[in-house]
Amino acid sequence: MSKVIGTMSISLDGIGAGENQTLERPFGGIPPGILHRWMFETPEENRSEIDAIVDAGAFIMGRNMFGPVRGEWDDDWQGWWGPNPPYHRPVFVLTHHARASIEMEGGTTFHFVTDGIEAALERAQDAAGDEPVHVAGGVSTIRQYLAAGLVDELMLQISPVVLGDGLRLFDGVGQWPLELVASRGASLVTHVRYRVSRPSQDG
Amino acid sequence: MSKVIGTMSISLDGIGAGENQTLERPFGGIPPGILHRWMFETPEENRSEIDAIVDAGAFIMGRNMFGPVRGEWDDDWQGWWGPNPPYHRPVFVLTHHARASIEMEGGTTFHFVTDGIEAALERAQDAAGDEPVHVAGGVSTIRQYLAAGLVDELMLQISPVVLGDGLRLFDGVGQWPLELVASRGASLVTHVRYRVSRPSQDG
Repeated sequence: MSKVIGTMSISLDGIGAGENQTLERPFGGIPPGILHRWMFETPEENRSEIDAIVDAGAFIMGRNMFGPVRGEWDDDWQGWWGPNPPYHRPVFVLTHHARASIEMEGGTTFHFVTDGIEAALERAQDAAGDEPVHVAGGVSTIRQYLAAGLVDELMLQISPVVLGDGLRLFDGVGQWPLELVASRGASLVTHVRYRVSRPSQDG
Repeated sequence: MSKVIGTMSISLDGIGAGENQTLERPFGGIPPGILHRWMFETPEENRSEIDAIVDAGAFIMGRNMFGPVRGEWDDDWQGWWGPNPPYHRPVFVLTHHARASIEMEGGTTFHFVTDGIEAALERAQDAAGDEPVHVAGGVSTIRQYLAAGLVDELMLQISPVVLGDGLRLFDGVGQWPLELVASRGASLVTHVRYRVSRPSQDG
C-alpha cells in the first residue's frame, strides 16, 4: 500500500498557519509569505525539495487548504492555484459539504470527500497505486492523520522565524517517536524528513 | 561586548523539558534521555557541536538547570555534573536564594545571582571578555532572555521526537525573525543555529 507522507512548512516553533484565514490571507494572521520565503526567494537552491512536495500519486488536503470558503461551496472557487494547479494528480479535499469533482488543467482533479479522513485516505491510496499519498495540509488535517496513526513520514520545511501565535502542527497529537531520515540546511530553510513510528498494532 | 547564545536540545515540537522535575528525573515527565540520545549514543558524529555547547567565556543557567532543590539551598547540592562539570568557566545561576559561590574542579565556579537576569548577564559578560556568554537553559531561562531581547543567537539541537506535553521553549516569547546561520543533519539530531534579530532600539 502506498506510503502516507505529511508535508508542510512550519516555523521554528511549529506553527503552520495563523488564525483567521481570509481570501486575502490564505495563511491567516501571520506575516504573509513568512513560512515560504525559502520557496519563493530561493527556488533553485531548493529545487529537489520543491519537486518532492508535489511528487505523489494522490493528495489529501483540508478544506482551508483548498480555499477560504466556509459552509456551502461557492462553485466559482476552484482553489488558490489558478487553472493549472501544481499537483497534476487526484486531490481529495476533506469537507462537510458535497460538491462535484473539478477537473483542472494539467491532470489535477479535485474530489470532495464528506465521509471522513479514513475514507479519503482509502480513495487516495486507490488512486495513488504504488506512489505515495501526500497529506498536503493544513495544520488540522495533518494533525488528524497523525493522531490517528495514519502517517508514515513527515516531510517538513522549518523556516527561520519564531511566530509565537498561530496553529501549531503538533498540538494535541500525543507523543510520537520519529526516525530522522534526512536533514538538509539551505539559506532560508532547514529541510527535515522523518519516519513516524506507528503505534503497535498489538496494543 | 560578548555575544549571548542560547543553547538547548528540543523536540520537533519545541519542548525542552517535561513538567515536574525531580532528583531522579532532571528533565521531568518526558522519557529520560529522549532529547539527548544524539549526545550519548552518537558523540563522535556530533563532536564539534558538543564542544561548541560548552565553548563559552561564561554561562548562565536557571535554578532548575543547576538542580532539583527548591526554596533554600541544600549546601550539599553542587549541581548534576559531579566534581568536574563540563563548563570550566564561571557559571551564573539565577535564583531567589543567596548562596556562596562554589569552586569546582576543572575551572568551573558556580555563582548564585539573586538580582535578576540583567544583573546575571552583566556579570557573565564581564567574566567572558570577548568570548560568548551561553544561556544554557532551562526552558524558562532562555525564554526570559529571549523575550527581553537579550539573545543574539540560538544554538539548538532538534531531536527526532514529538513529545506533545512539556515545557515549550518558545511559549510566550512573541515573534522573532531569525537568520539561519548553520544547519546540519546527523543520525539522531538536526543541528540549527540562528541569529536573532533584536527589536529596533528606536521603537
